[in-house]
Amino acid sequence: MTAALGTTTSTKNGFDLGPAVELVSKEEGHRQPLAPEFVSAEDFSPLEVAYDFGRVRREDIEAGPRNIWRYKKLLPVPSNVEQIPNTEPGCTRLVRADRLAKALGLKNLWVKDDTGNPTHSFKDRVVAVALAAAREFGFEVLACPSTGNLANAVAAAAARAGWDSVVLIPSSLERAKVLTTAVYDGSLIAVDGNYDDVNRLATQLAAERENWAFVNVNVRPYYSEGSKTLAYEVAEQLGWRIPEQLVVPIASGSQLTKVDKGLRELGELGLVEASPYRIFGAQASGCSPVSAAFRSGHDVVQPVKPDTIARSLAIGNPADGPYVLDVVNRTGGAIEDVSDEEVVEGIRLLARTEGIFTETAGGVTVATAKKLIEAGKLDPEAETVLLITGDGLKTLDAIEGKVGPRATVPPNADAVRAVLED
Amino acid sequence: MTAALGTTTSTKNGFDLGPAVELVSKEEGHRQPLAPEFVSAEDFSPLEVAYDFGRVRREDIEAGPRNIWRYKKLLPVPSNVEQIPNTEPGCTRLVRADRLAKALGLKNLWVKDDTGNPTHSFKDRVVAVALAAAREFGFEVLACPSTGNLANAVAAAAARAGWDSVVLIPSSLERAKVLTTAVYDGSLIAVDGNYDDVNRLATQLAAERENWAFVNVNVRPYYSEGSKTLAYEVAEQLGWRIPEQLVVPIASGSQLTKVDKGLRELGELGLVEASPYRIFGAQASGCSPVSAAFRSGHDVVQPVKPDTIARSLAIGNPADGPYVLDVVNRTGGAIEDVSDEEVVEGIRLLARTEGIFTETAGGVTVATAKKLIEAGKLDPEAETVLLITGDGLKTLDAIEGKVGPRATVPPNADAVRAVLED
Repeated sequence: MTAALGTTTSTKNGFDLGPAVELVSKEEGHRQPLAPEFVSAEDFSPLEVAYDFGRVRREDIEAGPRNIWRYKKLLPVPSNVEQIPNTEPGCTRLVRADRLAKALGLKNLWVKDDTGNPTHSFKDRVVAVALAAAREFGFEVLACPSTGNLANAVAAAAARAGWDSVVLIPSSLERAKVLTTAVYDGSLIAVDGNYDDVNRLATQLAAERENWAFVNVNVRPYYSEGSKTLAYEVAEQLGWRIPEQLVVPIASGSQLTKVDKGLRELGELGLVEASPYRIFGAQASGCSPVSAAFRSGHDVVQPVKPDTIARSLAIGNPADGPYVLDVVNRTGGAIEDVSDEEVVEGIRLLARTEGIFTETAGGVTVATAKKLIEAGKLDPEAETVLLITGDGLKTLDAIEGKVGPRATVPPNADAVRAVLED
Repeated sequence: MTAALGTTTSTKNGFDLGPAVELVSKEEGHRQPLAPEFVSAEDFSPLEVAYDFGRVRREDIEAGPRNIWRYKKLLPVPSNVEQIPNTEPGCTRLVRADRLAKALGLKNLWVKDDTGNPTHSFKDRVVAVALAAAREFGFEVLACPSTGNLANAVAAAAARAGWDSVVLIPSSLERAKVLTTAVYDGSLIAVDGNYDDVNRLATQLAAERENWAFVNVNVRPYYSEGSKTLAYEVAEQLGWRIPEQLVVPIASGSQLTKVDKGLRELGELGLVEASPYRIFGAQASGCSPVSAAFRSGHDVVQPVKPDTIARSLAIGNPADGPYVLDVVNRTGGAIEDVSDEEVVEGIRLLARTEGIFTETAGGVTVATAKKLIEAGKLDPEAETVLLITGDGLKTLDAIEGKVGPRATVPPNADAVRAVLED
């Protein structure tokens, strides 16, 4: 790890992180060499990766592997990243959703189904990028605080790479999420406290363990870039074209801002025509600080105490909240929030129209799209993409008691016939 | 449905099922026109699809969609199949598994990870083909008896296509499997009986409901062809090459025989060099009728009463058992079975070495591979592919109590440090 702590005159600091050249603070644009740091010492704002892309051609991407490493020339990862053991997420389905479109009153709808990733959520994308960058920085342990999807993705990626992992979870976490993390055999530690306690512990440990990469703490600037691949894939799958409207769930807000960043990069690089697009944000009403700020026209996001079944979105103090507001306002989008009842109806609507079973976060996205259409904010004529970022198998509690067999019958054909003719 | 019941002089019977030309009985080779039938009236053996492939080129396949429809010229599906609403399974990852290889003592190992399919098992492949053929035959309802993966796949595919589904399950089925089927909003009917009762009901209903396609009953010859796509993908992903050894789980035995059929077709069509390969079968000891027959050198498979945690393989009277023995003997493979304890160890071994969390059936495959290597039956020097056909999230019970947090600690860094330094 010592290499990462030295100072050099080169902005690239001796690391091969592909096109990444330095870190820039989001508020005042202070520049600093690439390093495992996440907050600017100058203005205390988050650090973001800046690039010198050079020339990137569609053909290079199309000739690449069928996973996110096809976009390696647009990511902060080593030039030979696809040769190093890691997970290979991405290239998930973009599904033409005519039946859902009809139910929602849209003309032209697509669903980006990220449940096909290795651990069935978009977190595999960000973790794979974090792991690739962390290795280059000399880290040896992959770590995170998490309540679910991230825990799965970190434990799985570390296992695949042959690294140790340290995953901190609240001890109250549902048994299913514990099992699906523990099976990868890293160091899973349950903490008697809530997610805030776990998160605080992670920040403390990140400061003292110099060979631990906490994916969403000390290597967060690299990690978060992984979400750009959602935008790249949507554009490539549409035939190198940007959709007019995207609906994106908001937790920390990072994903939404990175989807925007990815779309802008594609236009700037001439990989697509830089056509206008609008980005819409989706929250659960039980944790809707960004939606509340948008509604009241504020540019400051007031923290809340989450209370929603959409736990993977339940971040009461979203780090990228203000930047989400910037993106949504700049692109002419909107933000809306939906009740837990609407979330469940969103899950069920997507399942019964398109055969895609999403977790609560996807229910938030579908239900928010519905609300935005009804409010006249989403244009029903415009081509629209919904980002479905996680899997229903991980949040079965949400539909427990809501769906079930139509009937339970004795084992004879008459009984089945009677049910079907009801 | 009337079209399917007419008799015509054309062997194709007026249906567009692509390269499929007729049905052939497996025992005596009696030929009959394409129709939704599954048993030969001549010799009572299963019917199988026969083709006239014409010329199929790698370029045509490579230019196709990134799902099983890229192989439409090798499947009994309409020529325009990719334009008709259906699921788009396939093109799942083929993972280079160096860490698992090392643990097993192999030189050159790949894992075909079929958990990336829409409902996270290979059943999406066979159901998509069944749906495409069923539509061509004029059916309007997709149906099945099932205890899990098939139920999910049928309910999801029907939802996506806008069809009704009728899924029959034993009422004792785990709540998680019930929920993940019911969410798609078809007609899910729980039957107070075991799987044999449910299966019998399905056969009875298939005979009287002329617009119901029971995927694994009356359209079984088409359905089962979907498993060939596993072989096609493995070969294409290896750069149009056949691996020397494949390890395949055995339930009805259909998948193993279709993987063999797919590999042979590729060689016959000149899409790959027709190099020799050996196919190995994997069963759980608690339901190992085919393994038992292989061990004793019989060509008849004696039915058993299943008792294993590998429920998706728990078919006590496997329809294709004798044909599995033929394939394994012809290719020079072997069949082995493993205890439930070994199944769990197989799940955990794959998870901790490659970050892939499989269901019990995958645990059977991994554990059987281990046993075959130790017995000197799998050649450690030969390139080997393991088929991992389902997802660990669906069989969490198997690891319940076996894996968990390393410790539960109070929310302070000292407590975490103490655990990690243990």
